[in-house]
Amino acid sequence: MFYQVIDILGTVAFAISGVLVAMEKKLDLFGVLIIAFVTSIGGGTLRDLLIGNTPVVWMRDLTYVSTIFITVVLAIIFVNQLKYLRRSLFLFDTIGIGLYTMLGIEKGLQAELLPVMCIALGTMTACFGGVIRDMLCNEIPIIFRRKEIYATTCILGGASYFLFTRLSIPESYAYIAAIFVVISLRLLAVRFDIRLPNIYNKEA
Amino acid sequence: MFYQVIDILGTVAFAISGVLVAMEKKLDLFGVLIIAFVTSIGGGTLRDLLIGNTPVVWMRDLTYVSTIFITVVLAIIFVNQLKYLRRSLFLFDTIGIGLYTMLGIEKGLQAELLPVMCIALGTMTACFGGVIRDMLCNEIPIIFRRKEIYATTCILGGASYFLFTRLSIPESYAYIAAIFVVISLRLLAVRFDIRLPNIYNKEA
Amino acid sequence: MFYQVIDILGTVAFAISGVLVAMEKKLDLFGVLIIAFVTSIGGGTLRDLLIGNTPVVWMRDLTYVSTIFITVVLAIIFVNQLKYLRRSLFLFDTIGIGLYTMLGIEKGLQAELLPVMCIALGTMTACFGGVIRDMLCNEIPIIFRRKEIYATTCILGGASYFLFTRLSIPESYAYIAAIFVVISLRLLAVRFDIRLPNIYNKEA
Repeated sequence: MFYQVIDILGTVAFAISGVLVAMEKKLDLFGVLIIAFVTSIGGGTLRDLLIGNTPVVWMRDLTYVSTIFITVVLAIIFVNQLKYLRRSLFLFDTIGIGLYTMLGIEKGLQAELLPVMCIALGTMTACFGGVIRDMLCNEIPIIFRRKEIYATTCILGGASYFLFTRLSIPESYAYIAAIFVVISLRLLAVRFDIRLPNIYNKEA
Repeated sequence: MFYQVIDILGTVAFAISGVLVAMEKKLDLFGVLIIAFVTSIGGGTLRDLLIGNTPVVWMRDLTYVSTIFITVVLAIIFVNQLKYLRRSLFLFDTIGIGLYTMLGIEKGLQAELLPVMCIALGTMTACFGGVIRDMLCNEIPIIFRRKEIYATTCILGGASYFLFTRLSIPESYAYIAAIFVVISLRLLAVRFDIRLPNIYNKEA
Repeated sequence: MFYQVIDILGTVAFAISGVLVAMEKKLDLFGVLIIAFVTSIGGGTLRDLLIGNTPVVWMRDLTYVSTIFITVVLAIIFVNQLKYLRRSLFLFDTIGIGLYTMLGIEKGLQAELLPVMCIALGTMTACFGGVIRDMLCNEIPIIFRRKEIYATTCILGGASYFLFTRLSIPESYAYIAAIFVVISLRLLAVRFDIRLPNIYNKEA
């Protein structure tokens, strides 16, 4: 129940981010709908494809599709009001990537993959919906560009899960703790403007 | 036999649309070939991947690959004459998306998916070859932009199939009727310039 | 052992090509890492997805991930020195596509696909990492554009394998011979500037 609420909040936040990017590109109604879908379920879909977990998750129950559909309709109607929700959306998104990271890791463990592959799957689940959104909108994916720490929080949070279980912390506690690590790192990174190290020469 | 003819006509129409987009972008011979392939078989490939139906359909017999190959060779040679075929190509394309929608729905039913997921699969089969074509050609997918009703006819046609079967119409009749719904809606939409509702402010 | 060395050299060459493209686009550290990964393992991943060979290869052992990671770190540090390695990189890349073509063909044979599909899989394994790299970097894939013979050498080399086995040459010899066909054709094509036939009018 608790997870499902978070899952839906994350789905909503991702769908709205899709709507905003798509409307900035002046896509039509169908385009906005597809971009919102892809942003929400693209990461999990890629994960399921890579491990052979088909039919992919969102095809097996109506929760995602109906949540996204309702979100898109409301987001289009209230698009001018969305700016007042920026802070909530940021929070939902942050909680979303925390949960999605751990959902991806869980699937990786079920497929008996190595920890580093599980972390990769978790990061994909959290971040690659946005990557596909940006590809469809003809942009270089934003998470490859903005130097802000985003995907990195998923990687570190995912790694913390394996650290916690190594320290003999029970799995369910480690699971929740890792979600909080992702969320805290993201909040701290934004609060203190922590960025990835610059790999280019100053003058470049 | 009847289906196969339609299937091949659709494949040809999609491949030619790929050749035209690729040649507009001045791609080389290999690029034109790949774009034609992707346009023809991209939608069905995505569908097969999502439901785990592998090896994907076009890998299992030579019909598609050879049809597309011959189409590309002829289309490149007779590219200047293609404009005289515009009306036929539009018709093939329209028949193609009708058939592909139902082919996708059929696969969804075989995988025991919910009707709404089947409709999504059908629409993908019909429309997402063009989406991948446009991504490869560095364009925002045309079906997300032109406000014209295209994918929407697949969605409505697909929905009509489930309506028909609910009304106890035998499956094979419903199947053909739904194909005609897609085709008719598309023809009507183009004839009367019916578009998706505008979701942007007039002044924008 | 011999194959593994070649495989790693190919992986390194592909990863470096990813780093160079990503750094030209001024991506951040995470972006450079992902582009390097995708360039190296994208072709094989696509191949594995199409034939349903999941979890995809690179998820099953640490060789690829660690090779690519180390390559990226070194490539970023020594980016200014990379230009002195251009010739070696070209050679690694050429050996890489030769080997990857045959690795793809082998997987196709294991999946009992027709020769032409095996050749398609081989070409994808060798060339489609670069295609996905270019899509993510918002460019039309370079192998669709430069008229240089690149993918074509994989197709011809792959075809030579089936020719050799038809001529009753033992499989393992045919395998190695086909790798050499790819490599030789690529070297000859670059040496003598052999290109695909131009499909456009001169004046265009």
